Amino acid sequence: MMAKQLLTAALSRLQRGGLTIIFWDGDERTFGPDEPYFTLRIKDPSVVRSLLTNVSLTLGEAYADGRIDIEGPLTGLVRLKQENQSALEHLFGRLPRLPRTRNTRGSQRKQIAHHYDLGNEFYALWLDTGLTYSCAYFHSPEDTLESAQEHKIDYVLRKLHLRPGQRLLDIGSGWGTLLLTAAEKYEVHGLGVTLSDQQLAHAREAAGRRGLSDRVRFELANYQDLPERGERFDRIVSVGMFEHVGRGNHAAYYRAVHDMLVDGGVTVLHTITHQRETPNDPWIDKHIFPGGHVPSNREIMAALPDQGLRLVDYENLRPHYALTLAEWLRRYERHRDEVIAMFDERFYRMWRLWLSHSTAAFRYGAIDLSQYVLTKGVTDDLPLTRHSWYRE
Amino acid sequence: MMAKQLLTAALSRLQRGGLTIIFWDGDERTFGPDEPYFTLRIKDPSVVRSLLTNVSLTLGEAYADGRIDIEGPLTGLVRLKQENQSALEHLFGRLPRLPRTRNTRGSQRKQIAHHYDLGNEFYALWLDTGLTYSCAYFHSPEDTLESAQEHKIDYVLRKLHLRPGQRLLDIGSGWGTLLLTAAEKYEVHGLGVTLSDQQLAHAREAAGRRGLSDRVRFELANYQDLPERGERFDRIVSVGMFEHVGRGNHAAYYRAVHDMLVDGGVTVLHTITHQRETPNDPWIDKHIFPGGHVPSNREIMAALPDQGLRLVDYENLRPHYALTLAEWLRRYERHRDEVIAMFDERFYRMWRLWLSHSTAAFRYGAIDLSQYVLTKGVTDDLPLTRHSWYRE
Repeated sequence: MMAKQLLTAALSRLQRGGLTIIFWDGDERTFGPDEPYFTLRIKDPSVVRSLLTNVSLTLGEAYADGRIDIEGPLTGLVRLKQENQSALEHLFGRLPRLPRTRNTRGSQRKQIAHHYDLGNEFYALWLDTGLTYSCAYFHSPEDTLESAQEHKIDYVLRKLHLRPGQRLLDIGSGWGTLLLTAAEKYEVHGLGVTLSDQQLAHAREAAGRRGLSDRVRFELANYQDLPERGERFDRIVSVGMFEHVGRGNHAAYYRAVHDMLVDGGVTVLHTITHQRETPNDPWIDKHIFPGGHVPSNREIMAALPDQGLRLVDYENLRPHYALTLAEWLRRYERHRDEVIAMFDERFYRMWRLWLSHSTAAFRYGAIDLSQYVLTKGVTDDLPLTRHSWYRE
Repeated sequence: MMAKQLLTAALSRLQRGGLTIIFWDGDERTFGPDEPYFTLRIKDPSVVRSLLTNVSLTLGEAYADGRIDIEGPLTGLVRLKQENQSALEHLFGRLPRLPRTRNTRGSQRKQIAHHYDLGNEFYALWLDTGLTYSCAYFHSPEDTLESAQEHKIDYVLRKLHLRPGQRLLDIGSGWGTLLLTAAEKYEVHGLGVTLSDQQLAHAREAAGRRGLSDRVRFELANYQDLPERGERFDRIVSVGMFEHVGRGNHAAYYRAVHDMLVDGGVTVLHTITHQRETPNDPWIDKHIFPGGHVPSNREIMAALPDQGLRLVDYENLRPHYALTLAEWLRRYERHRDEVIAMFDERFYRMWRLWLSHSTAAFRYGAIDLSQYVLTKGVTDDLPLTRHSWYRE
C-alpha cells in the first residue's frame, strides 16, 4: 500500500526519539533511534492517506473520533515533531495553505463564542478558582495553580506601574479577575471588554459581589470600536487576547492601543508567540480557535516603532505555560466523566489532545509566552529599575 | 542671502522648544514657541550654506573649530531635533547617503584604534576607576558612577547565570573589568578579546595584579576569527561592542556567537539601538566612531531566530545611559585643561559636543540602550523567574 510506504519512509528519517505504530492489520513497527515516546494505533486504513495530505487535521480528527489511539503521553507527538523538524519537514511541510484570514470584525464575536462560550461550569472544572485562562506565573514549580495565577495577576499589575485613580483598560478581560484585582489593590478605574457573553455575565456578577461595580465596568465590545468613543486610558493591558486578533489585523490593534493611551502611558501585552512566522495549524483553526493566529515575536517587534510604541521590557515565560497547561490537563483528565456528560466522548478527546498538544508545544519550545511592556512615546515617569517588581 | 533665508524658513517651523541665533553681522533671531534652549553664535557666513547641505557634520566641525559657539546646554541641539522631527525633517532629511559600510575585517582594527587607543590616561580622566566605558546601571540617580558601574557589571553577570567552572567569552572586553570580576566572583574561566592595543595591555596588567592570569586570558583578536579555533563557551557576553560590528555584518556576529556557544548556552548582548533603522550620523562616522553603526532593535530581533538564538529577556536601559553620560560629561568638563594639554582645544570641543550629544540622545529618546538575554536553542536550565537578579 503506497500511502503506508510513504508514511514509513518519512518516519524512518527520525533523528531523535521514536514511536511505535500498530496498524489495523496488526503490523507493528517502531521508528527512531531512541525508546518510543508513545504507541500510535491506527485502526482505519483511510487515516494513513489522509495523514499524508493534512497531518495535523487528520491526527486531531481521527483521535477525537477514535480512529486512532495513542498509548503513552499525548505530548510525545509534539516532542517528536520538535526534535525532528528537518526529518519531518516532508510530512509537516505539506501543511495546506490556509485561506486568507477569516478573522474580521464581523466574524470575531462568533469565533470567540465558539471557544469561550462553552460554559463557565466547563472552565470551572479545570481552571483555577479565578477562571484565569492564560499562562500563570510560578515562583516555583511547586506552586499551586491557584497561587501561580494570583502571582501572574500581581506580576502583570506590577509591570503596569499602576497608581491610584488611573484609568485602566483591559482588552479581552475574560472572567474579570485581573481587572477586579487591579481595582481592589491599586484603586484604579477599570474598563474591561470581551466578546463572550458568558465571560461578561460572570465578570459583572463578580464586580457586584466584590463591591466594585462603581469603579469597574465590563462591556461586550470589540476593541476596534473603542477609540472612536474618545475615552482615554493611562494604562492598557491585554492578556491572552492578542492570539485572537488575527493575521493581518495586528496593526489595527497597535493603532487602537496607541490612540487610546495617554502620552507616556504604559501598556502590557501578554501573548503566545512563535519564533518564526508560522501558518495556522489547520486542526486548531477548524476545531479549537477559529480565526486565531499566533504571530512571531519579531513581527510584533517590527510593527511597534511605527505605531509610536516603545519596548521597555520583554520576558519570555515559556516554561510557565508548560507548567500551567500540564496542571490544566491533569485537572481536565480528572473531570473526564463530567466533560463527557456536558458534551460527549469525542469532545473530551479533542480537548484532551488540544491541552496535551499545547503543554508539549511550550515544553519543547514550539511556541513561547511573551510579555511586553510598552510605553507610548518616551517617558521618564517609570522606576529606574525592575526591583519593585520582585519585592515581596 | 539665500542660505540664511532657507535656514530661517526651516527653523520657523519649530513646534516645540526654541533657539536663538546670533549671526556674524550681529543679526539676532529667536525661533520656536518656547523659551530658547540655547543660543547659537554663527561667526562665519560659510557655515550657513554648509549647514543646509550636511547639518550634522557642519555643526560638529564648526563647533570644534570655533566657527560656531553654543551658549547654554549643548544637549539643547538634540532636544530640539527630537522634539521637532517632522518640522526639521527638511533640514535633517538632507543627510547625505553614506557610502556602503567601510567596516570590514581589514578596517576594524584601525577603526577601533581611532577611538579606543586615544590613551588610557585620557579615559581615566572621566571614566570610573574600572574604566567601564559603557552604560552604567543606577539603582538610584544618586548612585556614584563608580557604584553604578559596579552594579552594571554585577547585573550583566547575573543575567548570564554563571556557574563555577564555566567558560565565558567576552567579545569586546575593553579594559577587562567585567571579565575579571566574573572570574573572581563566579570562578569562571574567561577569554576576553579586543582590537585595542591599549585596552589589551591594561587588561593583562590588571589580570596579573588581581592574580587571575591563570584563569583569564586577554587577546588582540577579531571575534570573527574565533569560531574556527574550535574553542566553545558556556556563556558569551558583549557589552558596548556591537555598535562597532558595522552595517551588514550583524549576521556574521550572530553566527559566530551561535557557533561558539554550547547548546542551551546563554549570551547577553548589551548595545545601543535605534527604534527605527537610521543612517549613520556623518559627523560621528567621520570623527568619533568610524565604521560604527547603531542598529534598530527590530533588526536585531528579526535576525535572531534564523541563527537559532532565542530571546529570553529584553530590557531597555535608556535612562541609565543618560545618567552615565551626564556624569562622564561633568567629569570631562572638569578636566578641560588636561584634555587640551593631551590633545588641543579643537579635540576638547569635539569630544565635549559628542558627550553632550550622546547624553541628550538618550535623555530625549533618540536612541536606547538594549540588553538582550538569549539562549542557544531551548533550555530549561535557567531559573524560572528573574527574582535572583534583584536580591541584595
